[in-house]
Parts: sequence; C-alpha cells; structure tokens
Amino acid sequence: MAAPRINLPVDPARIEDVIDGLARLTEPGRPYTRRAFTALFPAGRDFLDQRFRAAGLETRIDAAGNLIARRPGRKPGLGTIMLGSHSDTVPDGGRYDGIAGVAVALEVARAIADQGIELDHDLEVVDFLAEEVSIFGVSCIGSRGMAGVLPADWLARESSGLTLEQGIRDAGGDPARLQAEARRDIAAFLELHIEQGPVLETEKLDIGVVTAISGITRIEIIVEGRADHAGTTPMGARADALAAAARLVTGIEALAKSLSEGPGHFTATVGEFSIAPNAANVVPSRARLLIDARAEHRTTMDVFAASVEQMAEQLARETGTLIAPPRRLSDNMPTPGDPLLLDVLDAACEMAGARHRRMASGAGHDTAFLAKVTRAAMIFVPCLGGRSHAPEEFAETDDIALGAAVLFNAVIQLDKTLSQEDDRWAGS
Amino acid sequence: MAAPRINLPVDPARIEDVIDGLARLTEPGRPYTRRAFTALFPAGRDFLDQRFRAAGLETRIDAAGNLIARRPGRKPGLGTIMLGSHSDTVPDGGRYDGIAGVAVALEVARAIADQGIELDHDLEVVDFLAEEVSIFGVSCIGSRGMAGVLPADWLARESSGLTLEQGIRDAGGDPARLQAEARRDIAAFLELHIEQGPVLETEKLDIGVVTAISGITRIEIIVEGRADHAGTTPMGARADALAAAARLVTGIEALAKSLSEGPGHFTATVGEFSIAPNAANVVPSRARLLIDARAEHRTTMDVFAASVEQMAEQLARETGTLIAPPRRLSDNMPTPGDPLLLDVLDAACEMAGARHRRMASGAGHDTAFLAKVTRAAMIFVPCLGGRSHAPEEFAETDDIALGAAVLFNAVIQLDKTLSQEDDRWAGS
Repeated sequence: MAAPRINLPVDPARIEDVIDGLARLTEPGRPYTRRAFTALFPAGRDFLDQRFRAAGLETRIDAAGNLIARRPGRKPGLGTIMLGSHSDTVPDGGRYDGIAGVAVALEVARAIADQGIELDHDLEVVDFLAEEVSIFGVSCIGSRGMAGVLPADWLARESSGLTLEQGIRDAGGDPARLQAEARRDIAAFLELHIEQGPVLETEKLDIGVVTAISGITRIEIIVEGRADHAGTTPMGARADALAAAARLVTGIEALAKSLSEGPGHFTATVGEFSIAPNAANVVPSRARLLIDARAEHRTTMDVFAASVEQMAEQLARETGTLIAPPRRLSDNMPTPGDPLLLDVLDAACEMAGARHRRMASGAGHDTAFLAKVTRAAMIFVPCLGGRSHAPEEFAETDDIALGAAVLFNAVIQLDKTLSQEDDRWAGS
Repeated sequence: MAAPRINLPVDPARIEDVIDGLARLTEPGRPYTRRAFTALFPAGRDFLDQRFRAAGLETRIDAAGNLIARRPGRKPGLGTIMLGSHSDTVPDGGRYDGIAGVAVALEVARAIADQGIELDHDLEVVDFLAEEVSIFGVSCIGSRGMAGVLPADWLARESSGLTLEQGIRDAGGDPARLQAEARRDIAAFLELHIEQGPVLETEKLDIGVVTAISGITRIEIIVEGRADHAGTTPMGARADALAAAARLVTGIEALAKSLSEGPGHFTATVGEFSIAPNAANVVPSRARLLIDARAEHRTTMDVFAASVEQMAEQLARETGTLIAPPRRLSDNMPTPGDPLLLDVLDAACEMAGARHRRMASGAGHDTAFLAKVTRAAMIFVPCLGGRSHAPEEFAETDDIALGAAVLFNAVIQLDKTLSQEDDRWAGS
C-alpha cells in the first residue's frame, strides 16, 4: 500500500471524515448495512447533503433520485464534468464500496475550490441511487435513470408493498420526468472505486486505470437425470444428474482458466448450484447450474458461450442425461473506457507519482451507464485481500487520497482539453 | 415378466386382494402414503389383522409393536419359522414395497392350511413396525426390537410431540418388555421383497435369491474454499469449493464404477450436495457432499473409504481448499444370507420352475435384523423399471405369486430339514 504522500492537492482527513461518517450510519449490530429504499438510507443522504453544502456546492435530487452537488463553471453551456459513485451498500457490506468514490468526488470539488481554481465546465458530484442490487432485485437505478435507460417496466417492481416508482419518489426523484431529464450535457464522467480484487495489492500498484467494465452474462443449465434407488441401481444403469453436472463444472472451470490467459479480463464462476431430490439414498435426478461469466472482450464471451453449449451437448450424450441448451438469463455487453479519458488518467497518475496499470473491471459500476451518454472512465484503488461486500472490506485512506489526487489532476486537464475540443468543434 | 403359472400352490387373487386392500388405505390424494406412527397406519393394521384372523391365524402385537399371526406346529418347542415384511410406506410411496412380502407371507400360511399340511414348527406371519425411515428419522423399528437391538436411547426420539416410546405403545407394543421379549425361538426367517432395482427385469428372471444385504456407509465431506467476488477475482487466485467438490464427485463416481465391476455388489452415490453462499456473483466458499456407499463385502467398503480419503487429501493440495478427513456418519456391516437357507431357496425355485439367480440387496431390509437372532434370508421378485418409493412402483401379481410358491416350497422343506437338524442336535 502507498505510504502517506506529502504535497497532495487533496486532504486525506476530509475523505476519512466522510467515509467514517457514513460508516456510523449502519443498521445496528449489522455493519455495514445501509441499503437503498430502507429506513436508514435517507440518513446517509442527509449526511452527504450537509457535507456537500458545507463545501459551498448547490445540491438537488434529479428525476432518478440521484443526489447531485454542483459547482458552476465559467462557461455556461460547455457542459458538465461529473464525478461520483454511490453511498448505498449491500447487506453486511463494507465501508468503501461506492462510498470511497463519493467521498473522493466531494474532496476533488473541495480541493479545486480551496486552490481557487475556476473551471470552464460545471463540476458535479453525484451520489447515484441504488447501485447495488436493492430490494427490487436490480442494480444501478440512479445511473440507468440519469442515462435515460431505466427500463420503464421496472418502475412497477414491488417489494414488501413498495414499488420502485414510489421508492424513487421517496428518495426525492420524479419518475415521470425520467425521459425528460435524461442527461445529454455531460462532457465527461469519472468514478473512483475500490478494486474489489487482489491485482493492485499483489502487484504493489496504486491505481488501476480501467480499460473496460466487463460484460456480464448469466447462463443457466439444467441437467435432467433419473431418480433411482441409490443402493439397488447398478452403477452402469444410472443417469446421475449430479455426476454429469460435476463434469460440467470441471469443464467450465478449465475453459474459463484457459480463456482468462488470453487477451483481456475473463472469469466464469458457477456460483449457484443445487440438486434434487437431494436425498442421501436417491440418485440425483436434476441439477441446476448458474454461470456468471464476465468478459472484457465480447468475442471471448462468444467463444465461452459456444464452448459451454458444445460441452453440455457432448456431456448429455456421454452420460445419458438430458441437458437443454444453456439459457442466457441476462447478457450485457462490455463497456470500454473512453480512450481520451484513459490517456488523461494515465497522465494524471504520472503527475501524482502513482504507480499505475491498465486493467479491466470484473464488477459492474455506474460508469457503465454514464458511458451511454458521455465519455466515461474510472480508476481503481487497492483494497485489502481483494475483499468487498463484507464487513472486512478495507482500503487505506492514503491510497484513496492518492486516487483523489489523480482525479483532481484529471479534472483540471479535462477541463482544458474538452474546452479546446469544444472550441475546435465550434470553429469548424 | 412371468406368464401366469398354472398349478401354483398359492392363489394370486388372494395376494392381489391384500395388496389392493392396503393400497386403498392411503392419505387422500397422495398415493400411496401410509406411514408408521400416523393416523392412517392403524387402518392398515386392522385390515391385516382381519385377513390374518379370517385365515384361522391367532394374532397378537409383540413388545416392539409388530403384528404377528401364528399357526401352531405339531412339535411345540421346536421353534418358529417366520415369514414377513412391512406394511408401512414412505411418503408418496408404492403399493408393493414391504406390502408384497406381508401379502405373500399370509398366502403361504393360507396355502399350507388349504392343503391340510401340518408343520412341525410354529409358523408366524409378521408385519414389522416402521421398516421405512419414519417420522423419527430411523428405520426398522419392529425388526430391531424383535431382535433386541433397538438402541434404548432411540425411544426418547421425538417428532411433533410424540416420542418413539409412545409411538410403539400406540401401535400396541410395550417398550418396557423389549429386552424380555427379544426372540430366541425363531428357527428361520424368510422375506419376499420387490427388487427395487432393474436386474431381474433386465435379465428376464423370476427370482433373486439374496446372497447378502449390503452394508451401508454414509460419508460426509466438507470442502472449505474462499468466498471471493466472481467478477474481480482472477481465475488463478481462487479457492473455489464447488470446483474442488465437483472433481471429488467425478472421482467418487469413477471409483464406484470400478469397484462395482469387482466381486460382489457395490454402489456409491453422492445423494446430498449443497454449496454456500450459493450466490451468482460469489465464488463458492463451502461445499458439502454426503456419500451413500453400499457393499456386499466389507473389504470393498474399506478400499472405497480409504481411496476417498486419499482422493480428498490430494484434491485439497491441488485446489488450495481445506478438506477435513471424510467423516462416517453411519457405518453398517453387510449381512450375508444364511447358507442353508440360500440352498433351500435355490431348490425351492427349481421346484416352482422359477428362473433364478443369486444377487445381493443394495437396500436395507428387516431381514438384516432378524439375521442377528436366527437363520435368515430373502428373495426378490422383479419390479417395473427398478422403480420403488414412488407411486409408479409396480410388480406383476403373477411374479409375486411365483415368489409365494417359492417361499411355500422353502417353508415345507425347511420344516423338514430343521426338524431333522434339531433331532440330530437332540441326539448328540
């Protein structure tokens, strides 16, 4: 991890203050739980709103329920440079996932103000609503909404008598204005996030400049065998769904390992697995696998999906089981980082003295939805043991502060570069 | 399946009458469910008691709650030849498992009476209490009790406020007298049962003469890995408990197939399998396997258990998971059939014109407990597709009747052979 840096343009203590302040707002006895659409979430929002306004920023809630803090630029109409992440957590989550990104976004705005820097662009700091999978079973509500791509039928989703529509309204949003307010004025979006993986820590690096947010494809496979008596059915006369599914798991792991050695990030995990009837003395008649596959490059995902299909076919033939063609329950494309932003971020790392590398994100982030309406990119900071979504989640304040310095440098550079670009277009 | 035989010493219609009569006594809308210790069980018992008494047999309930019908022999004190099985079912069970054996036992007694045959030995027809795993989670209550080997602490087992002790009492038993009434007077025990496997049907045979009831060993294996983020943790940096457990399942199946090709019956099944946290986006941190292994020869079981232990050790090393030494949750020895009885049964098959083979039982039966106090053996009759413990369970009445004829022949032969043997011993 990074040793404390001197002469950073940002103040680590102020970042820590925001992270600690939010950490205190957790369900009692269940650190760190502050889920969107639950009673505690508005307390986090109030805390952030106070900190935003104390920093001299104007705050508002947009149609999608995002909390936005704004510092106007010198050239109205040039557009907005936006920084942000999310303050909601998973159940039994950590102190840093999303939260570090919100704290850093605020700190960059404060540091710019402290140094008396006037930007051409408006600067906005955002706390996106419900990035994590919420009580409604879906994620990235705020960023989807801001980009105008929140599926309309999701608004009717219900959980414990609450609709998502009402949930957004309770958070201060206005679902009826989602399309009208879909943002087209954002010049660039940047997000800092903890890596949630072990790469930076293992390689003793400070910053990951994220080349792409992997596409996530969920594939379900059902293996149908035959429930026979475990004691009386000869080994050769069985159609054991578990035995077949086990070979599928082994094949999927081998395939994923091989693809992960190729170009770009790739993982595949059988995270859900169950059998029926799941009784000691009955040969399993059914197994269900859910594969979570993530690829930086779509071609890798295509190869994976086709290979899994082939593997399932062959295995069914060999084991006498029935395996229906694997079914994609969801399928999202990878989101590459904006090339200009990636170059600016690399340079910002150099300027801050941060050891950096390019790497893909295996996790989904709000950035993926902002990328639908603007140049967008993100950076990672190291976290302990790659752990996240757990109370043990940890990142050093100094590492986060170094990330803040990188974003500070990047914002100042982007403000210039994008102004010139805008001028160039204006003059053409 | 067998074509109808003429000149059988038994009456197929009477066998069918008993099987059909019990089939009608099922939980409404849930064929065929008549579990021991439930409200419907005494109805089955009453039906049997009436049929037993109509056949001129004296009936009683013993200390273990077994319904016993008796036909006295000519030489009091020579001992009892006992025939029987059980009338209780599993939930959603079939019409034949156990029931066919009780119906046949009664039919043999009736056929002997019809033909005016006087046996030297007393003849008893038994409906054992609770052969199937009952609401108390254990099996073979009546036969264990009759043999004096029902574990005393089982009596305190409770289910829905009922103790096993009270359950036996409700069935007419007297748990306090279990030890006093443990039977030492049985000269031989024979049971007919459906095969519950596909061997006889596949080989177009009428009767399986059971060489042994396999020993059953249940082995639990826990694989501990590490819960990591499925998207961000590189494939090479994981300790995936499911991936390791899947290889274990494959290894266990291959080992079991290989052992099943050796001498004697052997099966091994992973019937229970679960993972945690079982979440799509988390690398599985834990897997639990429960192996059900059944061996006709104890040495085969020893080889299996040692190989599984070695396999688990090696796999833990290779996958970076923790696998505690496999734990035997239960471990029962095989029960060989009595050699004299097996010879008598073979001869009885020949006399009845039944195509027969010797084969082991992969399932447990009351015979295994009777074997602790007397010569005991059993025969199998074919059943459709090897199916049992399901409503589809089916056996042809003519096949069952042929089995009854075999037992009829065997009882008459045994009555002579065992009388002579007794004389021989008396004269020595």
